[in-house]
Amino acid sequence: MLIFGIDPGIGITGYSLVEAQGENLELITSGSIQTNKKAAHPKRLLELKNDLDFLIKKYKPNCASIEQLFFFKNQKTIIPVAQARGVILATLEESNIPMFEYTPLVVKQTITGHGRADKTEVKIMIKNFIEIDEKVKLDDTIDSIALAVCHAQNLRFKEEIK
Amino acid sequence: MLIFGIDPGIGITGYSLVEAQGENLELITSGSIQTNKKAAHPKRLLELKNDLDFLIKKYKPNCASIEQLFFFKNQKTIIPVAQARGVILATLEESNIPMFEYTPLVVKQTITGHGRADKTEVKIMIKNFIEIDEKVKLDDTIDSIALAVCHAQNLRFKEEIK
Repeated sequence: MLIFGIDPGIGITGYSLVEAQGENLELITSGSIQTNKKAAHPKRLLELKNDLDFLIKKYKPNCASIEQLFFFKNQKTIIPVAQARGVILATLEESNIPMFEYTPLVVKQTITGHGRADKTEVKIMIKNFIEIDEKVKLDDTIDSIALAVCHAQNLRFKEEIK
Repeated sequence: MLIFGIDPGIGITGYSLVEAQGENLELITSGSIQTNKKAAHPKRLLELKNDLDFLIKKYKPNCASIEQLFFFKNQKTIIPVAQARGVILATLEESNIPMFEYTPLVVKQTITGHGRADKTEVKIMIKNFIEIDEKVKLDDTIDSIALAVCHAQNLRFKEEIK
């Protein structure tokens, strides 16, 4: 089961590809889709779509785990982030990839055991689940790995309670 | 100059195609893209993309006039509407259609002469600019016609002040 973790953004979309075999999680690759800051939003959204399509064709993920948005979190950035997220959802749907969404709270709880964890705590605790190269430093990329791990744990739990 | 007026929404996206030749405006067609309410958002967003692509290929508009969003206007619906708008922007960009955005305030001012106009006033006053079939009743469609008319007036003004 190859899980595509995605942390949506108009400037930076973090992504990860995590292979989940039962308890065993392996980070196949991770990175970020960064769009041209000087370009207009329609161009940046198309850039995001094309880069995402490239990753989908290259890695053929079985499903995607995406951050759920709330308007009260980032009132300033909510519109451009939601516009980017819309493009991501439509692009994944076009390739028939099933999608699952998780709130930042659920992701933090899954990785650290509580919902008030900060980014540093998530970064440290995520290594209990999956091996991550020291070179992976970008918050958005780490968040996308956390999203993929969260979905993998959720799948395991669902299998266990069957 | 064929202008594609678009009032974005996840459930209903109003659209119009307005041919502008100087002062002369003709409504070529108008309607709405409605997505399946029972479907998940990714499916609805792809439905919107495909229907929009169909309209672009059929009518080949020269440019698009789209409503600008503000987070303070509709906090409940802002995320799904912005997601739909993102898909619309990327789809138009993919077909190299230049886009222009107008706030509801500017559209109302252009059509009625003041920004506090309600929907009924816009509906009545828009007929001073363009002939509209009595069958066109849906607010979202009227809004999309108002957006196209607003852009046509803006273009004329720009040409006049050259």
